[in-house]
Amino acid sequence: MSLNVMAESDQFNPAFLQQLKVLRDQALDSQLAYEITESLTTEVGARLAGSPGDAKAVAWAQAKFKELGFDRVMTEPVPLKRWTRGQETARILSPFPHNLAITALGRTHPTPDEGITAEVVHFATLADLQAADKSEVAGKITFISERMVRSQDGSGYGKAVAGRGLTAQVTAAKGGVAAIIRSIGTDNNRTPHTGGARYDKDIPSVPAGAISNPDADLLVNMLKRNKPVTLQLKLTSHWDGDYTSQNVIGDMLGSEKPDEYIVIGCHLDSWDLGTGALDDAAGCGITMAAAKLIHDTIGPLKRTIRVVLWANEEYGISGAIAYHEAHKNELKQHILGGESDLGADKIYALGTRVAESALPTVDTMMSLLKPLDIEYAGNQGSSGADLIPMRRAGMAVFGLKQDASSYFDYHHTANDTLDKINPESMAQNVAAWIVVTALAAEADHDFGFGLSEE
Amino acid sequence: MSLNVMAESDQFNPAFLQQLKVLRDQALDSQLAYEITESLTTEVGARLAGSPGDAKAVAWAQAKFKELGFDRVMTEPVPLKRWTRGQETARILSPFPHNLAITALGRTHPTPDEGITAEVVHFATLADLQAADKSEVAGKITFISERMVRSQDGSGYGKAVAGRGLTAQVTAAKGGVAAIIRSIGTDNNRTPHTGGARYDKDIPSVPAGAISNPDADLLVNMLKRNKPVTLQLKLTSHWDGDYTSQNVIGDMLGSEKPDEYIVIGCHLDSWDLGTGALDDAAGCGITMAAAKLIHDTIGPLKRTIRVVLWANEEYGISGAIAYHEAHKNELKQHILGGESDLGADKIYALGTRVAESALPTVDTMMSLLKPLDIEYAGNQGSSGADLIPMRRAGMAVFGLKQDASSYFDYHHTANDTLDKINPESMAQNVAAWIVVTALAAEADHDFGFGLSEE
Repeated sequence: MSLNVMAESDQFNPAFLQQLKVLRDQALDSQLAYEITESLTTEVGARLAGSPGDAKAVAWAQAKFKELGFDRVMTEPVPLKRWTRGQETARILSPFPHNLAITALGRTHPTPDEGITAEVVHFATLADLQAADKSEVAGKITFISERMVRSQDGSGYGKAVAGRGLTAQVTAAKGGVAAIIRSIGTDNNRTPHTGGARYDKDIPSVPAGAISNPDADLLVNMLKRNKPVTLQLKLTSHWDGDYTSQNVIGDMLGSEKPDEYIVIGCHLDSWDLGTGALDDAAGCGITMAAAKLIHDTIGPLKRTIRVVLWANEEYGISGAIAYHEAHKNELKQHILGGESDLGADKIYALGTRVAESALPTVDTMMSLLKPLDIEYAGNQGSSGADLIPMRRAGMAVFGLKQDASSYFDYHHTANDTLDKINPESMAQNVAAWIVVTALAAEADHDFGFGLSEE
Repeated sequence: MSLNVMAESDQFNPAFLQQLKVLRDQALDSQLAYEITESLTTEVGARLAGSPGDAKAVAWAQAKFKELGFDRVMTEPVPLKRWTRGQETARILSPFPHNLAITALGRTHPTPDEGITAEVVHFATLADLQAADKSEVAGKITFISERMVRSQDGSGYGKAVAGRGLTAQVTAAKGGVAAIIRSIGTDNNRTPHTGGARYDKDIPSVPAGAISNPDADLLVNMLKRNKPVTLQLKLTSHWDGDYTSQNVIGDMLGSEKPDEYIVIGCHLDSWDLGTGALDDAAGCGITMAAAKLIHDTIGPLKRTIRVVLWANEEYGISGAIAYHEAHKNELKQHILGGESDLGADKIYALGTRVAESALPTVDTMMSLLKPLDIEYAGNQGSSGADLIPMRRAGMAVFGLKQDASSYFDYHHTANDTLDKINPESMAQNVAAWIVVTALAAEADHDFGFGLSEE
């Protein structure tokens, strides 16, 4: 008897566990997740919420779920305020003319059509801008040059991204006329990183954009010469009325408890600069493939496996909010949830946030995940952004942590395209999602509800 | 007595050789080349021949030569036909709408303002297009998808670039309406690679552009679905009248033979998408620094060290042609020539094309280059593009071969920016250029003239 088998919980039928191990290993050779991702990125491509790509993606998702043989395919309406990208140019006029690669931050206001021309004032970090006197900022375009640090867990993102979120509001509060930031990314490409800025309709804000890392380097070098730097900024992206998108849901129905759901999935929308391959077509491919392979190879499990392709994660988690609202009377039927939304590189850890009583099943998960080089990251785990409303309302969650070392080279840029995905790494993801999803769907117990958030 | 010293030719003063070795090693710690490169890319940036950046670069170069203490700074006029970049967009209209990242190929004709819309016909290589029947091509936009192969010596470029040169003419000859190619580059960025297409005023041609590697992958994947792919192409780049640029020349005068020249240098122009850091501000930094450090540390050598910053290498080697014409009566005073024009990564080999009688001095060069991990590549060497007219007329040349493994990730793209340069690798270049330049300037003999081209 191997160590793995010893660690397994007694609740599962040995034949089921054996089937699951075989499927896990077969999944490592499966191209299905990659094929689904290729299909979404090729046949739809960019799919910013509210854009023509949004509706195309919804149609694609319904057709794909049906093609894959999901038992039940549904859409649920997601109302949202639409934000539409416009022109975006940045030109240093003096002392040395240059065109900068820039992209508007999501949810920001437009400049006038003729643009805004003003002197640049430089801050190393958001904290420095926050500490600055209004007289330093008034009438100027602020520039935060903090660079994101690369790491396996992507934690550099959280540190740097506060500048993206807040600079437009902080700049406005100090009398600045516009804001630019160094892109929140780890690459050296002239492909600026977009992403959402904080938006509150009652808080003043200014037009804001991110310039690419090489452009930020150039601007820093220019500013070192201690001559005034004048920038002309045109960013015509803007709020653009109301829109109704859709969450698209594919269910593989449970045999014993069809009204209990293991909720996995991805977000269907993407930023508009690339084809949203890593963010988050990959997550769709991984989770759709996992459900499909479980269904075809093992058959129906006790609970329903629900794959949700969430609408408008990127600038509002609108799909998550709408789903939570629509299902608030049946939240306790959502037994465990996870989202794949950090690219397609290999998974190195499982984190959970489940009841103590469910930890033996987590041990079983780990015994099947260890051959995939996946460690346990503890029971203080988080979840994807789209599970935040339900997690806060009490749902148990898990996270299969992907190696994010290169993810932020491409995240939210024109470079987020299919070629960035290694099919072999992606298949390892599918194998891991199969293990966790199938064991949760087949478990005799629930995973707790109303767990405290630390 | 070391092996190195044993290999050295007797013609050189031992004190000079000792000074040269000390300088070679000091140069490894010098930041001068990087500082010059930072200056050109920051204070001028893009400098397409005939653009506003061209005149700024000429002014920058004169000022920089003077600041560095060159004995004689000159400009020489370079007439050229100007080519100006316009708008450039490519959009797949059906079966799946996508915007492609595209850039016009240099020297190509514009589309009408409303663009050209036609079906795409795909060829794996230029040879396949050349072999195609006119009926396959007539009325269509051709697409060549051959991918450049990465290698240390950059030889993949020569193989793939024929498509860039010829597709516009071949497509026109077969009745096609426009041509696109997969970028000639080794990266996976959405930064298409421009570059010159062949132009002959009497040969029909069509508008032509290069799409980025990820866009080429997307288009190939779409074409695999066997549905007609319709592309709308707008490329308004065009020929734009006459212009006079300048070669900028800095001389460090020789003490004994001031009218004999060791010609080193770079090209001053760049493509317009990036700041031309690797191509070819780096070559300017390396060769200007080499001449400056020789002058300041060792003093005047017997011959003049002439640093030429060539005008419009990129779409016509106009500066090279003008210089050859202006100096054709004194070509034999051009003793040896070399150009630095393949980025800033480390040099791994010296190639020469010199008289047999000069090979003992090449041996001396090699004895001083070996500590820099530089091998000898033989006496069938080539030269930079700007030395082609003088080499063909008989001038002896050398080439310090740089590792080009990553060069074609950035070459002719928006990504050709300062951050791609490693200052330490660049300093190794300077050390090598110092060795070859100083020994050639101090040698008692010439390096031959009228050597055969194989």
